[in-house]
Amino acid sequence: MYDVVIIGGGIAGITAAIYAQRYGMNYVIVSENIGGLLQEITHVWNYPGSEGMTGPEFAELLKKQIESADIIKDHVIKIDEGFKVYLENGMKLKTKTVILATGTHKKHLKLNEHKFLGRGVSYCATCDAPMFTGKDVIVYGGGNAAAHSAILLAIYAKTVTVVYHGEKLKMDNTVKKKLKDKNIKIKTKSKITELKGDKFLEKIVINDKEIKAQGLFVNIGSVPTTEMLNGLKIKHNKQGFIKVNELMETSVEGVYAAGDVIDKQLRQLVTAASDGGIASFSAYRFIGK
Amino acid sequence: MYDVVIIGGGIAGITAAIYAQRYGMNYVIVSENIGGLLQEITHVWNYPGSEGMTGPEFAELLKKQIESADIIKDHVIKIDEGFKVYLENGMKLKTKTVILATGTHKKHLKLNEHKFLGRGVSYCATCDAPMFTGKDVIVYGGGNAAAHSAILLAIYAKTVTVVYHGEKLKMDNTVKKKLKDKNIKIKTKSKITELKGDKFLEKIVINDKEIKAQGLFVNIGSVPTTEMLNGLKIKHNKQGFIKVNELMETSVEGVYAAGDVIDKQLRQLVTAASDGGIASFSAYRFIGK
Repeated sequence: MYDVVIIGGGIAGITAAIYAQRYGMNYVIVSENIGGLLQEITHVWNYPGSEGMTGPEFAELLKKQIESADIIKDHVIKIDEGFKVYLENGMKLKTKTVILATGTHKKHLKLNEHKFLGRGVSYCATCDAPMFTGKDVIVYGGGNAAAHSAILLAIYAKTVTVVYHGEKLKMDNTVKKKLKDKNIKIKTKSKITELKGDKFLEKIVINDKEIKAQGLFVNIGSVPTTEMLNGLKIKHNKQGFIKVNELMETSVEGVYAAGDVIDKQLRQLVTAASDGGIASFSAYRFIGK
Repeated sequence: MYDVVIIGGGIAGITAAIYAQRYGMNYVIVSENIGGLLQEITHVWNYPGSEGMTGPEFAELLKKQIESADIIKDHVIKIDEGFKVYLENGMKLKTKTVILATGTHKKHLKLNEHKFLGRGVSYCATCDAPMFTGKDVIVYGGGNAAAHSAILLAIYAKTVTVVYHGEKLKMDNTVKKKLKDKNIKIKTKSKITELKGDKFLEKIVINDKEIKAQGLFVNIGSVPTTEMLNGLKIKHNKQGFIKVNELMETSVEGVYAAGDVIDKQLRQLVTAASDGGIASFSAYRFIGK
C-alpha cells in the first residue's frame, strides 16, 4: 500500500515527488517519460533560477533531485475508487492517495493531417525544425506556442507564415515583437480547411485559397490528459481540465491534481512546480488525519 | 507612471519582476535587500532545479534574471489609493498597479530579549551559529525553522535543546529524525518566562526552573510585513496575512500580493515564486483591460 501514487513525470509530478520525499511518504511515480514536455523546450526562459538552460538540461537537474525515487515507466489506464491504479503492463497499485500530474497533449486539426504526419505535418518545432531547411512553412495558431515555433523555424525555413483563425493574436507582446524582428508573416482571420499532396504535403487551403507549403506546424492548443479517470467522478471544466481548490484538492477526497492538467490561468513551469509541492503537502496532511 | 510597482525583493518579488519583464510592463522593484531571506538560507533543499545551492548562491542566480530591472533600494512607508507609493527617501511613485511581496519578519518573545540581542539572543542560526562554539544553546520553537536552527547549531554548540510550549512538535518527519541523529534534546510543554544575565545571557527560566544557557535562538514564527498598508483597506486574516484569490488579487482592485505575506498553507520558495508570476500576470491583464 502506497501513501501516494504520482501519475506523470513532468515538473509538477517531479516536484510532488520532491515533497513526498521530504514528508517521508511511501510513494511511487508512474510515467513513461520523466521530464515530460521539458524534453521539447528549447530554452527555459522564465523559470526562477534556471534561465537560459535547455529543456533537457533542466530535466536532468530535476531528475537528480528524485534519484532515489521509485519510478514505474508505464501508462495508467484506470483508477478505481479506493484507490487501485491499473497500469498497462498489468500491475495494480494500491494507494491511500493519488496525485494527477498528467499534463496535456496537443490538439489536432480535424482534417486529413494524419496522412501527412512525418511527411510535412508536425506538432513540435523543437523536434522537427531543421528538416524544413529552405522550405515554405505554415504555423497554425495564435498563442505563445505558435510564436515559439515560428521563431525557431525562421532559422531554417525559406518563409514562415503564422496563420490564425482569430482576429487578434493571443501571444505575449515581447514574443510578438520577435516575430516582426525575424520577418515572419502573419495572417489572422484565416482558417485551414484542407491539406493537399501526393505522398508529402504540398499545398494548404486557407480561406478557400490554395497556398504552397511543404511544412505545417499545428499549435492550436492542448487538451488535458485524463482518459484514465473514467472510474472516478472528478469535476472538470468544459474543456476537461480538472477543478481544484487552492490546496490542489479535486472533488474526490484523497485525489489531488497539479500542473497543466488543472483548470487555471497561468500555465508555466513555476506554477506547475508549485502545484506539485502543494499537492504532496495536502496528501501528507490527509494521510496524517 | 509605472505599470506596476513591486514591493519586496525576495523570490516572490523577483519572479514578479521576471514576468513583468516578459509582459513588457514598465515596472520598478522597491526593496532594501534584493534576495530577501534567501541570504539567510544555508541550503536550498526542496526548490526544483536548485537543490544543494546555498541561499546566497541561489539569490545570485535570481538577480541575474532581473539584471536590467529598475531597482530602488529603499523602504515603502505608505501606499495611497490611486496609487501613490511613498518611500522613506521622500520619493513618490505613481503606478497603475501594486504587487505586495513584502514577506514576513520574525516574531519576538514578549520578554526582555532586546537586552541580550547580540549578547546571546539571536533570530538567525545561519547568521550566528559559529559564535556559539562550545556553548549551551536553547532553540525556542517547534516548527521546521526551529529544527533547522538546532541542526545547524549542533555542529558548533556543546549542547542544543529545542524548547517548545506545545505538546507535539510541528516540524516535518524527516527533519524530526535529523534532530535525533544529531543528539539534540527536546523539551515540549515548556515555556520560557525570563532571561537572566549581567551583560550577556547566562540563564533562562523555563517552567519556573532556571537553566544555564549562553545562547537563545527564537524561532516562534513570523508576522507579515504590512505596516505600509494603512492607507489601503486590504482584507487580511487574524494574523495579518493578506487574503488573495487564486489570481493573487487582494480585496483592492489593482493590488496583488505574493509570497509569504499572503494567507496560505505552504510557505516555500517554489510557492512564493509561483505567486509572484501569477501576480504579474494578473497585473498585466488588469492594465490591458
